[in-house]
Amino acid sequence: MSRTITSFDVARLAGVSQATVSRALRNLPNISPATREKVARAAAELNYVPHGSARSLSTRITSRVAIVSEELTNPFYPALVEPLRQHLSDNGYRTMLVTDDEDDALTASNLTDGSCDGVIITTAARNSRLPDALRAAGLPCVLVNRTTDSDRDVACQFANAAGAGHVAELLTELGHEHIGLINGPETISTSAERERGLKDALEQAGRWLPSRLIRHGDFTAEAGRRGALDLLDAPVRPTALVCGNDYIAIGALNAAKELGLSVPEDLTVIGFDDVAMASWELIDLTTVHCDLSALAWDAVDSLLRLIGDRPADCLRVTAVDLVLRGTHAAPRRG
Amino acid sequence: MSRTITSFDVARLAGVSQATVSRALRNLPNISPATREKVARAAAELNYVPHGSARSLSTRITSRVAIVSEELTNPFYPALVEPLRQHLSDNGYRTMLVTDDEDDALTASNLTDGSCDGVIITTAARNSRLPDALRAAGLPCVLVNRTTDSDRDVACQFANAAGAGHVAELLTELGHEHIGLINGPETISTSAERERGLKDALEQAGRWLPSRLIRHGDFTAEAGRRGALDLLDAPVRPTALVCGNDYIAIGALNAAKELGLSVPEDLTVIGFDDVAMASWELIDLTTVHCDLSALAWDAVDSLLRLIGDRPADCLRVTAVDLVLRGTHAAPRRG
Repeated sequence: MSRTITSFDVARLAGVSQATVSRALRNLPNISPATREKVARAAAELNYVPHGSARSLSTRITSRVAIVSEELTNPFYPALVEPLRQHLSDNGYRTMLVTDDEDDALTASNLTDGSCDGVIITTAARNSRLPDALRAAGLPCVLVNRTTDSDRDVACQFANAAGAGHVAELLTELGHEHIGLINGPETISTSAERERGLKDALEQAGRWLPSRLIRHGDFTAEAGRRGALDLLDAPVRPTALVCGNDYIAIGALNAAKELGLSVPEDLTVIGFDDVAMASWELIDLTTVHCDLSALAWDAVDSLLRLIGDRPADCLRVTAVDLVLRGTHAAPRRG
Repeated sequence: MSRTITSFDVARLAGVSQATVSRALRNLPNISPATREKVARAAAELNYVPHGSARSLSTRITSRVAIVSEELTNPFYPALVEPLRQHLSDNGYRTMLVTDDEDDALTASNLTDGSCDGVIITTAARNSRLPDALRAAGLPCVLVNRTTDSDRDVACQFANAAGAGHVAELLTELGHEHIGLINGPETISTSAERERGLKDALEQAGRWLPSRLIRHGDFTAEAGRRGALDLLDAPVRPTALVCGNDYIAIGALNAAKELGLSVPEDLTVIGFDDVAMASWELIDLTTVHCDLSALAWDAVDSLLRLIGDRPADCLRVTAVDLVLRGTHAAPRRG
């Protein structure tokens, strides 16, 4: 009967220590590509398979982090998942992408079954019970691009109100009096903070954002299109549309084209996030730049601190700035 | 000392069988929402955590499928992952999203450690050794939107050559003589099949696609832009650009705008895939429609067959058709 092949056999064949084999096969850092290759070849030659389940029972370390995101078809989230994944991988963690269930308890039970060491949540509503449920199960958890109403959560986000303030300043300088807002859902912190920031900054400039010029919907191009068609149908048309994110803004640009309006001559449209396509010639969107890699780094660093029982800030905020492209201008004088 | 809470305790409190608790907590189908809720509440009340690692050691079933994809920031892949995830979830499987390593052996060792029951690969090159490595480890594996040079792989894909043939027919009918192609990498089956299909159909119509009018690059808008700027700089400009996917086509539209060319009057641009943004007013792209949900269903069905030791077709092909929008016209007569 052949005996079981162990990591020590792999180490002997590869000519390295067992610890190096373990690190190399778990994809941890500080192993040279040549050594990794040597270990992988030796493991393949011996047909050695480290059994993840056995390993995690003995050490309770899975080297895996779950990212919870329900909106992968909104390209903002893949663009955020990518640097999260990269920073996690650089720190020896594999990524497991999990979709939010509508039932927080069920999502929590799927995450606390021993399959991961920590969780990054990208799409929580303000009243989500998921962070509480994870905390109760002792699983470290960080909210990214979101905060909740609980002050016990660890969160990383952009300076949403400040960014909206930059937009208000630009529109005030250009002389816009009739400003509309097409925003994301009111239940999400990102939307709420951007709306608050815009209102406050406009008020400070002696302007006012009336409720009749505000629409709420999904963070999608289709919601932006519908919101814009609705707002532009009013007797006194807004001359500028501030949008809760770039996809809403692109939807507003689609609506303008549908109505035969020229941007920016007839209508100013401002986005938020600066996703990759905002800089396409076809779109050329003036927007608020948000550095996803910096945000992702904060989130991964906070999570690694929690996993390692080190202190983590409750809130870390990444600065944003305005990118001036082709969709803003002074209003036509009528 | 308190004894360990088991699924039988949860079943007693919820008033259902232990099998129902097990199915409900593993998110398997055929459990009513009310029962699921009852079980989740009972589990929460008892603070019961099914330990995934312990479970998988006892049954060797993880109820988890890995999707390997390296290009999440290309929105085509999230749009494909979403229906894969949905079909898998409908069949009681959770999804683990894994990023391709450059080293196939290392990726394989990360997948064959007992953390999943099967693998769906979306981004393999034609010479990828990953399917072989997974097969050697006894892990079921299906390629989606890709084939490899090995005839032992199980793959699901679109009718790429037929779709390119429809494009050739349209351009021939419109009277285009100078046709350029901006394609994805030659090492990927999707690119190769679309190119072959276009060439064959043009030849049948007595036309020719010369090498000097073909460019290869990534499947990205930026590669499309560069390819188009290059092709449109030639002494005899192509009057139509066929693109390997929609992002390349959008890049070509960006290049046309940069050069001050009107589409479709000065230039016809045709995409492939019909991603969501192809129908935006700003883009309005004539392209080949590919039904991602149908493709994803084929892939999940094939994988479930392999996991269940049932026969699966080596190749399943989803039909495609042309969507006529605003980026095609007859060439200007000069």
